[in-house]
Amino acid sequence: MSGKNAYPKTMKAVFIESQGGPLVVKEVKTPVPGPGEVLIKIAAAPVNPSDLARIRNAHIENDLATFIPGLEGSGTVVAAGKGLLPHLWSGKRVSCSSKYGTSGTWAEYMVTGAAMCFPLTRKISDEQGSMSLVNPLTALAFFEIVRERDHKAVINNAAASALGRMVELLGDKHHIPVINIVRNQKQAEMLKGAGSKYVLDSSDPSFLADLESLSGELKATVLFDSVCSKQLQHIIEALPSGSSVIIYGNLSGEEQILINPRSLIDKNINISGFYLGKRTKENGPIKNIINLRQVSRLMSSGLKIKIQNRFPLEKAREAVNAYLGNMSAGKVLLVPGFIQ
Amino acid sequence: MSGKNAYPKTMKAVFIESQGGPLVVKEVKTPVPGPGEVLIKIAAAPVNPSDLARIRNAHIENDLATFIPGLEGSGTVVAAGKGLLPHLWSGKRVSCSSKYGTSGTWAEYMVTGAAMCFPLTRKISDEQGSMSLVNPLTALAFFEIVRERDHKAVINNAAASALGRMVELLGDKHHIPVINIVRNQKQAEMLKGAGSKYVLDSSDPSFLADLESLSGELKATVLFDSVCSKQLQHIIEALPSGSSVIIYGNLSGEEQILINPRSLIDKNINISGFYLGKRTKENGPIKNIINLRQVSRLMSSGLKIKIQNRFPLEKAREAVNAYLGNMSAGKVLLVPGFIQ
Repeated sequence: MSGKNAYPKTMKAVFIESQGGPLVVKEVKTPVPGPGEVLIKIAAAPVNPSDLARIRNAHIENDLATFIPGLEGSGTVVAAGKGLLPHLWSGKRVSCSSKYGTSGTWAEYMVTGAAMCFPLTRKISDEQGSMSLVNPLTALAFFEIVRERDHKAVINNAAASALGRMVELLGDKHHIPVINIVRNQKQAEMLKGAGSKYVLDSSDPSFLADLESLSGELKATVLFDSVCSKQLQHIIEALPSGSSVIIYGNLSGEEQILINPRSLIDKNINISGFYLGKRTKENGPIKNIINLRQVSRLMSSGLKIKIQNRFPLEKAREAVNAYLGNMSAGKVLLVPGFIQ
Repeated sequence: MSGKNAYPKTMKAVFIESQGGPLVVKEVKTPVPGPGEVLIKIAAAPVNPSDLARIRNAHIENDLATFIPGLEGSGTVVAAGKGLLPHLWSGKRVSCSSKYGTSGTWAEYMVTGAAMCFPLTRKISDEQGSMSLVNPLTALAFFEIVRERDHKAVINNAAASALGRMVELLGDKHHIPVINIVRNQKQAEMLKGAGSKYVLDSSDPSFLADLESLSGELKATVLFDSVCSKQLQHIIEALPSGSSVIIYGNLSGEEQILINPRSLIDKNINISGFYLGKRTKENGPIKNIINLRQVSRLMSSGLKIKIQNRFPLEKAREAVNAYLGNMSAGKVLLVPGFIQ
């Protein structure tokens, strides 16, 4: 192990006190990178929906005494384990992803695989760089699903979100038409202005009829939905027979989605959930490295993600609540040492 | 073509007047059996949930001017097309299934493939025999799904229904444990008395906790649900991660099922509909013939199906409404020429 920067023997990190219990900060030993790994001094880490799912289910697959949340972040590599890649990243600013099931980015320092890191150019800030992996990996996973199930076109709900924009970017790359659903005229005009071919405004009175005819015409048989709005049941009824609905978020905050069982039986509709952590784990390390290599191209798309607030690690609980309180106001970041 | 019995040149049959329109009886030419086919004088035909789905969607794949509903029934073979099997059935009482997409059993006469018929023994009445194909074929299809997706155990809702009993019968045959859900203590005792190993009463206060532990222990990762009750969302939350929920009916009559999106995302739950007509069509004729051969064994299980009412063809609309009004009161039969 070698490192350009000195670092303290202990660090602050966020832990889950007990199953379903609050998030707390503890002082623990700073971890040491093994072969192929690096130690990163974390600059910023966002609260993602996938983190919330991971926190809820942490007790199932992890020892809560050692589990630190946080799927992605950014920082500086301050120590490197054996290997070419760890030494290449040494001293560099990177965006980074935690290994599934190990310590995360909600800490002053994190050890992760060097292959889970990406060098950040000067043009990308620590804050923007901290949010540059989960969205692209999610969008890539969506198109893996599109390929596996041979969907001819995609319906992209919350299309004006950072992830929504990436879904369209990948659609263009794969020559898969993307029907973008936004929730007002302003967003619709923004997307059309940016060159989107298919944009539907869910507040438009003809929305459901338009969706039915356009999805039928394009054979758009998969809907990626992160909204879970009350309108979802009608959206489902407008889809072509045999469509798949993939729920990956709950921006509306609705506790329940309503489904008409007839649409399931008569139209052979399939509804499932998507959780990046699970997919990453199933993919295994090689597939993930291949995916991460594709991420850099998406990162350079220059999409800037809105930030609503920043919190120190000690206020992880408040950070989660702020994000849950208004998910569409922008991302919430954890910034170690941040002074409010 | 040859036949033991004479039959009239025209017949009464049920048609759909227009898309979404009422059922009407028309006088049309009695069809003539081709090679491998038989003409059956229909004795009785039930209203099945799969018929209702087929009527709702008839306009998509059929010409409404020639489409006659009715997936199954019973009757006597009065004319036979070329072939060994047609001649073997000639003059016999049979239970019969319509070919997908062609004329159905809600008529005085029906032409179908001889391979879609089964001779009825004297012990089985016309009425009981008319309901002896859809349930067994559905149960067989369920275990095809169990095999395809490698489920280790099955959860069987509405377990006291005729179909529910068949699911357990097939579970025994395939050595797949079946968790039977019934809705009261009386049904629970009936099933236990009949030798069921796993019976849960959904009115029991410990029901959800019992379901969670038992489904986890047995790795029961598929639920076949024909109820769509308000309790479904809690049942789903009690299932093991990665479970499939297959909705094949709506006995509760609820217009909507409620789903917690978290259970989809966190627990990777998949919800889909099942519709026998679609499965039968995808299977193709050979697979269906193999399945029908397995049906005879299930028929001899001696399970008697309850009948709530009988209607003549002219009252097909009333028959459908009576069935929809109280699906758990028993089957509704169409009996050509029935006098109320």
